[in-house]
Amino acid sequence: MARTQKNFAPRKDELVQIALDIFLEKGYERTKISDLQKAFGLTKGGMYHYFSSKEEILDEVIDKGISEIIDSFRRELPNVPEEDRLLYLLFSESTNDFTNRLFQYASSDTGSIVSYKMRDQRIKAPLPLMTEIIKQYVETGFYTCDYPEEAAEIILLVAVNISDHTVWPIGDEKKQKNRIDNMLLIWENCVHPPQSHLDRLREIITNYYAQMTLQKDARTETEE
Amino acid sequence: MARTQKNFAPRKDELVQIALDIFLEKGYERTKISDLQKAFGLTKGGMYHYFSSKEEILDEVIDKGISEIIDSFRRELPNVPEEDRLLYLLFSESTNDFTNRLFQYASSDTGSIVSYKMRDQRIKAPLPLMTEIIKQYVETGFYTCDYPEEAAEIILLVAVNISDHTVWPIGDEKKQKNRIDNMLLIWENCVHPPQSHLDRLREIITNYYAQMTLQKDARTETEE
Repeated sequence: MARTQKNFAPRKDELVQIALDIFLEKGYERTKISDLQKAFGLTKGGMYHYFSSKEEILDEVIDKGISEIIDSFRRELPNVPEEDRLLYLLFSESTNDFTNRLFQYASSDTGSIVSYKMRDQRIKAPLPLMTEIIKQYVETGFYTCDYPEEAAEIILLVAVNISDHTVWPIGDEKKQKNRIDNMLLIWENCVHPPQSHLDRLREIITNYYAQMTLQKDARTETEE
Repeated sequence: MARTQKNFAPRKDELVQIALDIFLEKGYERTKISDLQKAFGLTKGGMYHYFSSKEEILDEVIDKGISEIIDSFRRELPNVPEEDRLLYLLFSESTNDFTNRLFQYASSDTGSIVSYKMRDQRIKAPLPLMTEIIKQYVETGFYTCDYPEEAAEIILLVAVNISDHTVWPIGDEKKQKNRIDNMLLIWENCVHPPQSHLDRLREIITNYYAQMTLQKDARTETEE
């Protein structure tokens, strides 16, 4: 019994990795709970020891993907120059294989429950770390901001929606530029950074979204 | 054949109304395509004449609910004083029975595909009408704004997320006030309204969200 408890977390983590493989292969909607049970090599009762439903398995897959990327940011952050930390959190690419596969799957299955849940988690999960960074910036006088958490909320909401295209379809170059202008207006008015930081933000954000648009165009062409 | 074509749209509209009844009764996830077919009184082939999948039926239900409310706003708008039109579009309650039932269902089923789709439509569907109103305000000099459509996008995104609680959990009174402050900052900086309009906005928005919070608390208590 003690042994079971001891192995519970690592075993569950293995199952979550297997579940992502199955979702990638069959698609989440088409995956049956019996497919997962078979892939896990567990009895029905054995599986319910770990998960109560297919949706709970999906939630655990997403949670693992998002947590791993946040954890790796948290580990890397001390090595990033202080003024770049917020940008690093928002605009650097993940190097984690599990997370990359999950992101790719979610963005290929637009309009599915997987893509909706992922978008929400991309807005919600980085919030504590981003709030911490803004609070540090306020302490050092780099930012001026009365409510760091709500500033982080709104910056994340807008940043993710500019890149996701579900709510805001991609639009032309001018539209994308106007959205970035609005995002920088919010940044400026919610946290009052120095002008040099705003200029740097504009450059990095513009390049990041331009590259994402190129990648999306390439994917769309491959699909056609 | 001519007769079939002529009756197609009204008949489809009836079926969409029946579908909402079934979704309310059974829940969307648990509704089988055969339940809908039975309720429609159609053969399988007859049903595929109108819809190709259960998800398409849901999309039509949501589309009908949202279109009806936007159409009614569009009809009412000439009777609303010009300066109140944007507020009317964002913060007045629907009086349409179909739409109300759909909204209630979506908010009772948090985390379901129905609630995700509804939230996105609440952000996307009012965009053309809201852009028109902002453009009129710019013409009369009431607002100053270089890109009305992107201003409308961001105001809608934030307004819906303050009220929906999926991405931004409800939080305490102070948190809600800070979010409203941020929303007004965006309003101020994206469209530059007169101070009197901003004051009025603050009052209406604060009351609207306070009332919504009360309603949500009441619903939560009833469920317990």
